Amino acid sequence: MGEHTVTSFDEDLDAIDRLIREMGDLAGGMVAASARSLVTSDGALAQRVISDDALMDARQRELDDRAITLIAKRQPVAQDLRSVVGAIRMAADLERIGDLAKNIAKRVGAVGEGVAPRELSHSIEVMAQAVIGQVGTAIDRYEARDAEGLVRLRADDEKIDVQYTAVFRELLTYMMEDPRNITACTHLLFCAKNLERIGDHVTNIAENAYYVLTGRQLPLDRPKRDETAVSVRPD
Amino acid sequence: MGEHTVTSFDEDLDAIDRLIREMGDLAGGMVAASARSLVTSDGALAQRVISDDALMDARQRELDDRAITLIAKRQPVAQDLRSVVGAIRMAADLERIGDLAKNIAKRVGAVGEGVAPRELSHSIEVMAQAVIGQVGTAIDRYEARDAEGLVRLRADDEKIDVQYTAVFRELLTYMMEDPRNITACTHLLFCAKNLERIGDHVTNIAENAYYVLTGRQLPLDRPKRDETAVSVRPD
Repeated sequence: MGEHTVTSFDEDLDAIDRLIREMGDLAGGMVAASARSLVTSDGALAQRVISDDALMDARQRELDDRAITLIAKRQPVAQDLRSVVGAIRMAADLERIGDLAKNIAKRVGAVGEGVAPRELSHSIEVMAQAVIGQVGTAIDRYEARDAEGLVRLRADDEKIDVQYTAVFRELLTYMMEDPRNITACTHLLFCAKNLERIGDHVTNIAENAYYVLTGRQLPLDRPKRDETAVSVRPD
Repeated sequence: MGEHTVTSFDEDLDAIDRLIREMGDLAGGMVAASARSLVTSDGALAQRVISDDALMDARQRELDDRAITLIAKRQPVAQDLRSVVGAIRMAADLERIGDLAKNIAKRVGAVGEGVAPRELSHSIEVMAQAVIGQVGTAIDRYEARDAEGLVRLRADDEKIDVQYTAVFRELLTYMMEDPRNITACTHLLFCAKNLERIGDHVTNIAENAYYVLTGRQLPLDRPKRDETAVSVRPD
């Protein structure tokens, strides 16, 4: 295989990696805007998140098409093949993150103004900030080919799970205090759950990036995902 | 390429398709058992769903390894390549279905006995039955190479969304009636949401199977996913 062919494969892969970066930036921006629109009841900002999701879907299809074409044309093996398959998987997780941010944005109207007390808005914003940081770091570590950084990132997901459990309990308390809070708090509960799930997708991205870089799977045992589901043991 | 090689590719692909079938059967069984354990407060059955999830993860890794090896060894193009990439994606959705069933099973203890009124248990079981039927049908249509059947299946997801919206409203009513129901109903709300999300993953499976069979993507517009998120417009 001539040097020209090798360069071309790398160029094609670079174009795919640029799409991953673009999708990662878009995902982080969507999560930030959805949380912001939720705590400020900003319907126009929520609407932008909803339309950004169509852009995200289009980028994922573009990446998929490029990846499939690349495999067909270059027939890569080993590390190269892992890179392409890994990119397809990372794009699928980024698209899901966009979907979850859109779902938060769609709940902005249903939550309404003034229902969530200031402390609760603060808890949700802190959670969103942690998640946005994770999305950015995952793409950075992947671009820097930093496998160890990816392992640490997966461990960080536990912190988000802890924050989610706290928000979950806080929301239950508000619902019990006043039944008129129930509808809004239920939507906020799903918003918090969506942020926690975004954390899980970042974990998937870290796992796939690790596989691309090292050729090894991270061990099967992941950090617990949702502690609220096991608050009473199903014995 | 000799006939022997062609046969071998098909044999390898058959092995992957058998894993898809096995994962599909396992997913359907896990969803059925998780819903059953929820409405009967059967902790032992819930525990089996939780351990089945490890089996599901192992099957997915096996399928991924086989698929990657197959691409590397045979370097398939066009329809053959689509089949392998499509199988990887379908397996990822089946694994997520197992994860969601496990999450339902983990909530069995937290929901407890006697909280959910009979009508509510019935609604959740009806929803579970619809979802289980969808999982089975998706794999059947894929095996039968029936692209049109897959299009119909995607449309069926709307029915599950309607059922979810009804259960969502029913649960809010119980919470408002008596604050002591709030904790259990919140867990049931996530269980219902998980069933609705399983329906979304079946839609993804149908879309991927359609792509494998026809080489075309289904149009981007999907049926609405969660009507409860837009009960008030975010204007």
